[in-house]
Amino acid sequence: MIKILIDCFGGDHCPEAPVQGALSALAKNPDLHLILTGDEAILQKELEGKSYDASRLEIVHAPEVIGCDEKPTDVVRLKRNSSMMKAIILLRDRDDIQALVSTGSTGALVTGALVRLGRIPGVIRPAFCPILPTMDGGLVGICDSGANVEVTSAHLRQFAIMASLYMENVYGVKNPRVALLNVGKEAEKGDEIRQETYKLLREMPSLNFVGNMESRDLLSGSYDVVVADGFSGNVLVKTTEGTALELLKKLKKDIFSKTLYKMGALLMKQMFADEKEFMNYQNYGGSVLLGTSKTVVKGHGSSKAVAVEKCIEQAYKMEKSQLSSQIETEIQKYEHYTD
Amino acid sequence: MIKILIDCFGGDHCPEAPVQGALSALAKNPDLHLILTGDEAILQKELEGKSYDASRLEIVHAPEVIGCDEKPTDVVRLKRNSSMMKAIILLRDRDDIQALVSTGSTGALVTGALVRLGRIPGVIRPAFCPILPTMDGGLVGICDSGANVEVTSAHLRQFAIMASLYMENVYGVKNPRVALLNVGKEAEKGDEIRQETYKLLREMPSLNFVGNMESRDLLSGSYDVVVADGFSGNVLVKTTEGTALELLKKLKKDIFSKTLYKMGALLMKQMFADEKEFMNYQNYGGSVLLGTSKTVVKGHGSSKAVAVEKCIEQAYKMEKSQLSSQIETEIQKYEHYTD
Repeated sequence: MIKILIDCFGGDHCPEAPVQGALSALAKNPDLHLILTGDEAILQKELEGKSYDASRLEIVHAPEVIGCDEKPTDVVRLKRNSSMMKAIILLRDRDDIQALVSTGSTGALVTGALVRLGRIPGVIRPAFCPILPTMDGGLVGICDSGANVEVTSAHLRQFAIMASLYMENVYGVKNPRVALLNVGKEAEKGDEIRQETYKLLREMPSLNFVGNMESRDLLSGSYDVVVADGFSGNVLVKTTEGTALELLKKLKKDIFSKTLYKMGALLMKQMFADEKEFMNYQNYGGSVLLGTSKTVVKGHGSSKAVAVEKCIEQAYKMEKSQLSSQIETEIQKYEHYTD
Repeated sequence: MIKILIDCFGGDHCPEAPVQGALSALAKNPDLHLILTGDEAILQKELEGKSYDASRLEIVHAPEVIGCDEKPTDVVRLKRNSSMMKAIILLRDRDDIQALVSTGSTGALVTGALVRLGRIPGVIRPAFCPILPTMDGGLVGICDSGANVEVTSAHLRQFAIMASLYMENVYGVKNPRVALLNVGKEAEKGDEIRQETYKLLREMPSLNFVGNMESRDLLSGSYDVVVADGFSGNVLVKTTEGTALELLKKLKKDIFSKTLYKMGALLMKQMFADEKEFMNYQNYGGSVLLGTSKTVVKGHGSSKAVAVEKCIEQAYKMEKSQLSSQIETEIQKYEHYTD
């Protein structure tokens, strides 16, 4: 039985989206057991009239609410009875629970997980790995994208190992093409850390390292994993999301500026709806924290039930494939390098 | 008289685009004198049959050609008779010449300018500042975006001063809103360099510092200048350009997938042409190198005549407003801070 915690408060559509997502996942996977955290009375009410296997669903009462402006470190320290912090502590303390899915504050979740959970043996720094859709219908994972703003080449090498195993095991990508985010393709580009990392990655026989990647090529479909420090990885992911959203907004505005355009857009209604779905990042699942002793998946704050269900599926696949122990084995091979 | 060098070889449309751009700029500005560098015979042939004020146009013979794969440091050292390096050396040696416009290799141009040209007194590191269009019809300058992959807070403060004066003098932006690229809006976000820089920028009375910017907000129109290290600034600019181009490509592909969409797109033909022009970065002029003793403007490799003319206009405005001496004065105010 795989047991996963669902933080039911914190996202835009709470608690209905996490609860509905949980019930759908439960119905599809007979070896799945879910534990919902949050205000028990509200959760009970949300479950009323719905049919599910009650023997595989628990509720843990966690009445505290996390405010929008609260500092992650304060949340971790002071809000132990919030749905998120309660879930992290349960994940740490209960051997029978393997994973946590949350759509709450990224900062609080990452900080909480880093502070409260242990690491996979050998992992120096856990890293955050979101997924973006590429223009050829594939996916690319970016690791790290915010957990570590300062890194060494030894950290970056571990991010490469973890993200490559993740894309292979959870998304079925065979022999993922791993690239290093840099300011140019040539081996000597970038700062000292990038130059060192390039050499380290090239020397790893188990990794399909394809060289440096310039950021303009992220969506080209030529890469499955991009390795980055948390600062520039964050810029890479958020710029992509921001540009796509701003352009869609502009298109919409421009369409409404002329009757002729509105008529044209009517014929293309389905296409524009498809583009919007394509660029709706919650369709691709959540961002995972790789390297913590237990699995943490962060769904978008705007996640609806389907998106939460996808996050649960990600966590489930990570457990099924025993990703953590694969990461441990692979990292041990290169242990003598780590600082 | 303002004298500007035009490197006539290196871009995709050479020499016709630089030559035609030069002639248009010459016709519009009676106090402009241009010096074309490149193969003299080819340039003479390109000028044949065209009418222009020959007393304000010179040609300097520079027959060597820079290959695509040549390392910037090799170009600077070995290709002294290329149109680009000849222009840089002339710019350095001749007191009567103020600026250089080139559409050749960015790496070679930046390296050449940094190695061969001096800096404005007080400037620690020159920085590269491209311009992007924002969704509300404005512009945003990103400084640095590639010249310095490793920086200190003192460097970043100078980038802020230089880019703010640049946006004000060349694009007429009053009191430019300056933001620091970071992984979150709060003052304590990012690494130590970002935290220090935040404090330094907040303390500058002559700068309109509006705080940290998350990369997803680059195109929102809320910022006129974004200050960044060359690594993450490069990621910011290239990701924006790459995402916009990939999305346009996808739209085009999807339109051709169904007859209905093709019909709709016919009605919206003008709109799509406008979007394409909007996202055509050469329409907004070139990237300038700020902080070198003399002005260097880098046009896109794909620049046509109009784009080259815009680059010449940028250089012209920088000279007319005496941007260098403004930068010198402003930087001296904070000189005691620099390392």
